[in-house]
Amino acid sequence: MFAARCEKLYEMMTEFGLDALAVNAGPTLTYLSGFDFHLMERPTVMVFVAGRRPTIILPELEMKKLAGVEESLRIFFYGENPQSWGGVFTDALADLGLSGAKIGVEPGRMRLLEYSYLTKGMEEAQYPDGGELIARLRSRKDATEIGHMRDAVRIAEDALEATLPMIRAGVTEKEIAAELVINLFREGSDPELPFSPIVAGGPNGANPHAQPTERPLAEGDLIIIDWGARYNGYCSDLTRTFGIGSVDEESRKIHEFVLQANRAGRAAGGAGVPCAEVDRAARREIESGGYGDFFRHRTGHGIGMDCHEDPYMHGENEQSLEIGMTYTVEPGIYLAGKNGVRIEDDVVVTENGAESLSTMPR
Amino acid sequence: MFAARCEKLYEMMTEFGLDALAVNAGPTLTYLSGFDFHLMERPTVMVFVAGRRPTIILPELEMKKLAGVEESLRIFFYGENPQSWGGVFTDALADLGLSGAKIGVEPGRMRLLEYSYLTKGMEEAQYPDGGELIARLRSRKDATEIGHMRDAVRIAEDALEATLPMIRAGVTEKEIAAELVINLFREGSDPELPFSPIVAGGPNGANPHAQPTERPLAEGDLIIIDWGARYNGYCSDLTRTFGIGSVDEESRKIHEFVLQANRAGRAAGGAGVPCAEVDRAARREIESGGYGDFFRHRTGHGIGMDCHEDPYMHGENEQSLEIGMTYTVEPGIYLAGKNGVRIEDDVVVTENGAESLSTMPR
Repeated sequence: MFAARCEKLYEMMTEFGLDALAVNAGPTLTYLSGFDFHLMERPTVMVFVAGRRPTIILPELEMKKLAGVEESLRIFFYGENPQSWGGVFTDALADLGLSGAKIGVEPGRMRLLEYSYLTKGMEEAQYPDGGELIARLRSRKDATEIGHMRDAVRIAEDALEATLPMIRAGVTEKEIAAELVINLFREGSDPELPFSPIVAGGPNGANPHAQPTERPLAEGDLIIIDWGARYNGYCSDLTRTFGIGSVDEESRKIHEFVLQANRAGRAAGGAGVPCAEVDRAARREIESGGYGDFFRHRTGHGIGMDCHEDPYMHGENEQSLEIGMTYTVEPGIYLAGKNGVRIEDDVVVTENGAESLSTMPR
Repeated sequence: MFAARCEKLYEMMTEFGLDALAVNAGPTLTYLSGFDFHLMERPTVMVFVAGRRPTIILPELEMKKLAGVEESLRIFFYGENPQSWGGVFTDALADLGLSGAKIGVEPGRMRLLEYSYLTKGMEEAQYPDGGELIARLRSRKDATEIGHMRDAVRIAEDALEATLPMIRAGVTEKEIAAELVINLFREGSDPELPFSPIVAGGPNGANPHAQPTERPLAEGDLIIIDWGARYNGYCSDLTRTFGIGSVDEESRKIHEFVLQANRAGRAAGGAGVPCAEVDRAARREIESGGYGDFFRHRTGHGIGMDCHEDPYMHGENEQSLEIGMTYTVEPGIYLAGKNGVRIEDDVVVTENGAESLSTMPR
């Protein structure tokens, strides 16, 4: 699987005019190699060049992760003294013969730490932005990846299902969030959640990125729960909005508009459709309800090994959706001082349009 | 508190010859401002200049996090279309009048993404490495910070205590890790753990960075558990090694050597002591037992808002410890194909030497 992904990468490197791609610890490195390194103070970098074994530069301490596949790699390792690290990068890059080469890097992931070791190790190279190539490579998911995402969605849905009985007036946002986190792990999430759940009741729901507080839920509140699981490295990211007891008419009304927008956004997706059209389809519903000014974020984001990744569903993104792309549809209405509603699903582009991976009642 | 930290920063900037410091989402930004932004696809950057209000460049979506303190900041925000972001950075930097200035950056945290917006926004500035300044600033913890670390240690100890009853032959590493994670949250850890627990039984313990597997524990195994909690943003990081039933004599022996090394490493710390001496004190014990070749990593790392941060306890680091510094002492012996032992505590340098924050039996 990883060899095939590398072959695809090498084809695209030619298309993008790159001689090499250098990636540090993170999802792209894992996608191309299967290795899972943490982004820590010790830099780990892999360099991919067509027709060569991938080169890896890593701490000696992490060598055990390469057990059994050493033959398929060119390995350069270093010890615990940071002053020795630069020399190891220099050796690795000299060995690759990349003088004068164009070595793509990933701006959203690579730190100045790794970049500095690379550029000092091989000053005679250029380091152009490889972000678009990586987005193209990773955004079209294969069946295995979509399977992991379905599992991540199922784990999230089951975890919320198990948390629902405790959601009632008097319970705090923090208490609900803590129980939901426990249930996510109980249902089988990877240990690193894609993000900490948002549990935002009443006026706190008017902040799209609220953090759970000590505020107890009250009768008549709307409560937004935005949560997700990770499975085999792949994320889910869902949102549901509930009413506590009986809610007022405006709350019911904005929930209905957001539901229509969510439905329209999900229905709009399909191969060849511009991302902007997903945003426009959802936004139209909210605008026609008169709440356009209260939906102040994009309709969604790509999702995969990163919880937020390409493609982004905003009104100026004319990029076309392709089969295998996965993204969120998450319109919302936020009424400052009062409440908020958001309804979010994860969808995949198929031959027949866009299929929601999440099925929990909205 | 944050104003005082900024004043300290400005003093140190003079000492380090910096006109400004630019930090992106992460612990240093939180340390200096109290804001908690996630490292996402939308860059958030704060720029600190003595005598000016701190400047923040952030997504409009995140503005609610500034509620109530807008007056103390210079705020520049942007919308959902990435093509508009560059202009906002340019405006913010022009407004600061930093042409020709030295703007420190943090290599271990700043990505090429933010760096590129900064350098394109203000081409006439230099961007030197501010990592050492930041390490100096953050490594000496105050009483509030040490209080948070004590809480993070207590949460971790209570979580392991609650997990111990399930640790027996037949249970898999993954099952123990999952239960431990649940207990960490139940005991009150922040939602983002410092790292996923390591649970490594028998031969898996010979890999210092092992990941939990489906291997069931067997009679006679040593099992290494390396785990930690986070509280108010501060980390704990502990390790204990247990025997399953009755273990062989060599296992008992290496456990005893590691225990002595842990004790010697903890005792060695104190104001004015070089970090290298902590490493040497621990290593001597293991070497005198004849296992020096099987202790192949440094003795410890600084710990605080980052789980790994300055200062590092390796044999070539002659930096002196100072009061308020917090770090791990975690010697180990790893016997390939057989087993491993590691015993790790978190200590703080006080007027009287080094005090262990962790007290759980070793």
